[in-house]
Amino acid sequence: MRSVAIVGVGLIGGSFGLALRKAGFRGEITGVSSPATIEKAVQAGAIDRGESLEQACVHADLILLAAPIARIIEQLPRVMALARHDAIVTDAGSTKRAICAAAASARGRARFVGGHPMAGKETRGVESAEASLFAGRPWILCGAERDDAVNAMFEWAERAGANPLLMTAEEHDRVIAAASHLPQMVSTALAAALARRPDAAAVAANAGPGLTGMTRLALSGADIWQDIASTNRDEILGCLDALGAELAGLRQRVDAGTIAEPFAAAAGFARKVRER
Amino acid sequence: MRSVAIVGVGLIGGSFGLALRKAGFRGEITGVSSPATIEKAVQAGAIDRGESLEQACVHADLILLAAPIARIIEQLPRVMALARHDAIVTDAGSTKRAICAAAASARGRARFVGGHPMAGKETRGVESAEASLFAGRPWILCGAERDDAVNAMFEWAERAGANPLLMTAEEHDRVIAAASHLPQMVSTALAAALARRPDAAAVAANAGPGLTGMTRLALSGADIWQDIASTNRDEILGCLDALGAELAGLRQRVDAGTIAEPFAAAAGFARKVRER
Repeated sequence: MRSVAIVGVGLIGGSFGLALRKAGFRGEITGVSSPATIEKAVQAGAIDRGESLEQACVHADLILLAAPIARIIEQLPRVMALARHDAIVTDAGSTKRAICAAAASARGRARFVGGHPMAGKETRGVESAEASLFAGRPWILCGAERDDAVNAMFEWAERAGANPLLMTAEEHDRVIAAASHLPQMVSTALAAALARRPDAAAVAANAGPGLTGMTRLALSGADIWQDIASTNRDEILGCLDALGAELAGLRQRVDAGTIAEPFAAAAGFARKVRER
Repeated sequence: MRSVAIVGVGLIGGSFGLALRKAGFRGEITGVSSPATIEKAVQAGAIDRGESLEQACVHADLILLAAPIARIIEQLPRVMALARHDAIVTDAGSTKRAICAAAASARGRARFVGGHPMAGKETRGVESAEASLFAGRPWILCGAERDDAVNAMFEWAERAGANPLLMTAEEHDRVIAAASHLPQMVSTALAAALARRPDAAAVAANAGPGLTGMTRLALSGADIWQDIASTNRDEILGCLDALGAELAGLRQRVDAGTIAEPFAAAAGFARKVRER
């Protein structure tokens, strides 16, 4: 029976433990987190017990790094050095190039497969963890080909209920900049621009479902996004430039009274998002 | 018992008829629309019968113009000329300055009170009408003060379940440009920018709840928005300029790794939207 160590037992790490248990996994699941978090995670049934990072690394068959990006990058050299030669180390960070590069330059014989489960919710922490968080959601795994380690991670992701798919770290960061990081920046810029108006209170008071939906992502804290922005800067800047050009074009079209083309292009894309 | 004429029996007009009936209004409700729409509206119970615009104007106590903005502006001179001196003419257009100006320059003795019920849904037409569409939603009425006609419209809006509030047409167009028109333009620009990427299909396939929510408004057709953009151009351009400046600032901050300030401002505004 294999054993799993979850390093950083928050929403994602805790949900992974719960999902494995729900799927019938009977091996040991340990957690590396603060004592308070370990207590909550054990109570929730997400892990069996807590241990130190060192202890976790030397015995686990699968090590999931589920802390914030900067912390994962900081942990990787030690984890890769301590992990068993037949262990698989993976992670759940929202950007992949910096993490995969850190793993590649670390010394050790364990195999690293970067990952990004495309799941989440508005609340954080193991208190919000749920066994069905990954159900039916994409779980991106990074690699050039389906080698043994990637195949093993496909199985773990499927066991958690997700739909694993393979792409390179470069592809991941480019596509996710557009599908996730840009929408966040747009929601934040919209809400920040409205916050600076002298009549911001009247605007908020007259918000309909449209503005409410468009400012949902803007509730996000800067802390996680600081990490994402600093490890995917070039792709995010490229997306912001493309959006800036699109907005400038739309401004001209509003001025000229000819908005049909961008509205049609946008509606086509919005329908494609909903076709899946 | 007073009589109501609804000119343009679509989602808004039909829902107004249904809401009045649900609230116990027993006067006659007539509709001015195409024969096919009239048939559906009578079947739905939104109106009692159809009639011509001329017939409606000469007998109704309340005339609600609920067609698209350009059509309302076109109908206003005839409606104001034909309406009874003690009738109230109102409308449900999404911008107010152009409509109120058209009403002010029309000849006739009826009193005009411009209005904008802040309600809607993704589907259109009388088929989508529902008695509860206005329940608890703001219904903006335009005027400088609470005169008799405005007071009468407050009562009609309350009867339909809405929360009426008074502002000038200028205030309306400025606040609603920010609360409604800008979010639409932002959603459209985001979806159009993504539509133009060579990897648009991969981006759509990897959309999470964030991108899905941010592209919901982008499903809107250009037809209504053409009217809105042309009758609120200056305010929308001002909003787009402010957003462009905010995005340029955010771009610099992503580049410099210091995104905390706009994220905090945005989160504060997003919470304010949800406080109501």
